[in-house]
Amino acid sequence: MKVYDYKGFPNPARVRIALAEKGLFDKVEFIHVDLPAGEHRKPEFLAKNPSGAVPVLELNDGTLISESSAITEYLDQASGNPDLTGTTPKDRAIIAMMQRKIEAGLMDAVGAYFHHATEGLGPDIETDQNPTWGKRQRNVAVKTMGWMNTVLADRDYLAGDNFSVADITAMAGFAFADFAKIDIPADLTHLLNWRTRVSARPSAQAAA
Amino acid sequence: MKVYDYKGFPNPARVRIALAEKGLFDKVEFIHVDLPAGEHRKPEFLAKNPSGAVPVLELNDGTLISESSAITEYLDQASGNPDLTGTTPKDRAIIAMMQRKIEAGLMDAVGAYFHHATEGLGPDIETDQNPTWGKRQRNVAVKTMGWMNTVLADRDYLAGDNFSVADITAMAGFAFADFAKIDIPADLTHLLNWRTRVSARPSAQAAA
Repeated sequence: MKVYDYKGFPNPARVRIALAEKGLFDKVEFIHVDLPAGEHRKPEFLAKNPSGAVPVLELNDGTLISESSAITEYLDQASGNPDLTGTTPKDRAIIAMMQRKIEAGLMDAVGAYFHHATEGLGPDIETDQNPTWGKRQRNVAVKTMGWMNTVLADRDYLAGDNFSVADITAMAGFAFADFAKIDIPADLTHLLNWRTRVSARPSAQAAA
Repeated sequence: MKVYDYKGFPNPARVRIALAEKGLFDKVEFIHVDLPAGEHRKPEFLAKNPSGAVPVLELNDGTLISESSAITEYLDQASGNPDLTGTTPKDRAIIAMMQRKIEAGLMDAVGAYFHHATEGLGPDIETDQNPTWGKRQRNVAVKTMGWMNTVLADRDYLAGDNFSVADITAMAGFAFADFAKIDIPADLTHLLNWRTRVSARPSAQAAA
């Protein structure tokens, strides 16, 4: 398998953490896509992912899978333990729900702030900024952190008692928030404790 | 099971179509949430879904599942044929990828246009509009339609030879585009033919 990505970037981190959790990190070939140079907007890359985004997973038969949630689920389903996406329909639904809320409310919100209300990837790439939208999405991200803190008041992980893709998406989202200088408010102690806990996992180093 | 929704609205339509496809439509209780009156932003509803959005599925044990992609997958996994989310890891990944691209590029883009660049749900609800963002997302929706047309040049359904949740999300997205007056360009014949095909399914009536 090949993974087209950019080490240290937010959505690539989701796949790298999942690979590490599943013991697959050394079984894939990473192919660097030069985002600051705009490589993701050139025809060769758009043929792999018309959305023009990393990561993309290429299976050995040439099938191309983009969208991080689809890639991490594939990696989970196609290999053994530990389970990251749930085993019963109900557990799977709770994990999928939490993963999607964190993707929209944290990861994508931080991304909108970064690309629209800061210098982002620089003027050659950020050609259509909307600072008002970006600042509004910063508020969404901080509000999402407050909700996550409430969720973590009575559970160890975001979707329940077990580590899941919801936690992976959050780990990558908070690394992005650090980079965009959006701090976790100091009174969100459940969330801060969760972050200490997941940051100690070996997989956290894989994406750094 | 209970479904909190608003008949005729876009994301509720995804769940209604999925229920009809699975033969479950008459096995759930629909509970009307008065969105134009702002019921989705009141504490009673936010306790069910902190995102303040419909649909929400309440299982018989009281578990609350929000996010349409999580709900439709639950309905698919928790009951029998027809399969809507794939059976092999690879097919599941392709369906999840296509579903997510259509959710972001069509459904959510049309929603951003509707809520930010038109009157939307009216001045009492649309209190923080960003018309520039809305118009930009209209362009995203039309561009997504072009990509979908290309995809459908050599397959009958959006994720392959079989009808799936990717088609359901698109059906609901196009109903929303109709309402927001974003037409499918007349030269996208593969897409227009697909729409004729899926509109003939009995499930299409369930959501109307």
